[in-house]
Amino acid sequence: MAVSAGMVKELREKTGAGMMDCKKALSETGGDLEKAIDYLRQKGLSDAAKRTGRTASEGVIGSYIHPGGKIGVLVEVNCESDFVARTEEFQALVKDLAMHVAASNPLYLRREDVPEDMIAREKNIYEVQAKEGGKPERIVERIVQGKLEKFFQEICLLEQPFVKDPDLSVNQLVSSVVAKLGENIVVRRFQRFQLGGQ
Amino acid sequence: MAVSAGMVKELREKTGAGMMDCKKALSETGGDLEKAIDYLRQKGLSDAAKRTGRTASEGVIGSYIHPGGKIGVLVEVNCESDFVARTEEFQALVKDLAMHVAASNPLYLRREDVPEDMIAREKNIYEVQAKEGGKPERIVERIVQGKLEKFFQEICLLEQPFVKDPDLSVNQLVSSVVAKLGENIVVRRFQRFQLGGQ
Repeated sequence: MAVSAGMVKELREKTGAGMMDCKKALSETGGDLEKAIDYLRQKGLSDAAKRTGRTASEGVIGSYIHPGGKIGVLVEVNCESDFVARTEEFQALVKDLAMHVAASNPLYLRREDVPEDMIAREKNIYEVQAKEGGKPERIVERIVQGKLEKFFQEICLLEQPFVKDPDLSVNQLVSSVVAKLGENIVVRRFQRFQLGGQ
Repeated sequence: MAVSAGMVKELREKTGAGMMDCKKALSETGGDLEKAIDYLRQKGLSDAAKRTGRTASEGVIGSYIHPGGKIGVLVEVNCESDFVARTEEFQALVKDLAMHVAASNPLYLRREDVPEDMIAREKNIYEVQAKEGGKPERIVERIVQGKLEKFFQEICLLEQPFVKDPDLSVNQLVSSVVAKLGENIVVRRFQRFQLGGQ
């Protein structure tokens, strides 16, 4: 079992153990990273039960608490350099996004994140609606697709109309800042708490 | 199939449909709430694809962004009345809790939330450590239990030492505010974002 430098590096980052100990741990455990972590901890060579991975990218975590304190949002937006992360435009984007999430309550980041069974359930409802509404069979499929598009625009953050300028989707808003700052920007994740909600 | 008033109420809250429509939907679907929601939507009697349940309790959502914007926290703390939620003491507690989560990085709210396999893995490590450390068999179990207690105190918010006064656990901090305000207070959930983290 050849232990690569990359594997040793990853194990060091995760455990803080020395290079030789990491090499030994990996060859003893056949290169299984999780087992190597356990091995080092058993030997007392890693004290880091919950050391997190190194940050993969730059950016900013932003928050928004709606007045009254019944709705709160956390959002992570990534960019390529800390320089851009500190710019006023980037910080304003993060603030806008957090505020948008509070107002528009997206359920997912992008349509790829919507569970298959949720989509199937929606399609079924639209189909029954269209048929009961007396629509001819040949256009039912088109109606269902159209409603599904609208559904994605309702529940996916990146497809929602931006609350401060509904002519723009959130994705288009982000793209406009990308064009201005010349760096890739990715909305990585968000969390919305509503008092007593899920 | 008898349709109870409680079921009708819940369906109304979830769909915004009228009482008679909700009754009909429930009896048509044998009292299955999810099916009744679909039924109402198929009939066009509920426009609320994503209406959330009514708030179950009072309280406040608080946030904390660590200077630099690389760590952010959202926390929900519940109490019994909006009056208490607005008090200075309660708001200070929420702020302290958010700041504590940023600093101490708990992984779970309480020990009941820690997955069984994570506990088993820890126990195994402690056991091997104790045995390799030459501890006599008869006290290994006690050592493992002691270390497991420390592990819970490390990763569970309510058991962590409060960052601003480590003589107190977070649970004790909450209890002290309960005693002061005379209302039950529950830390309901938290979310911690670290830039580039999980």
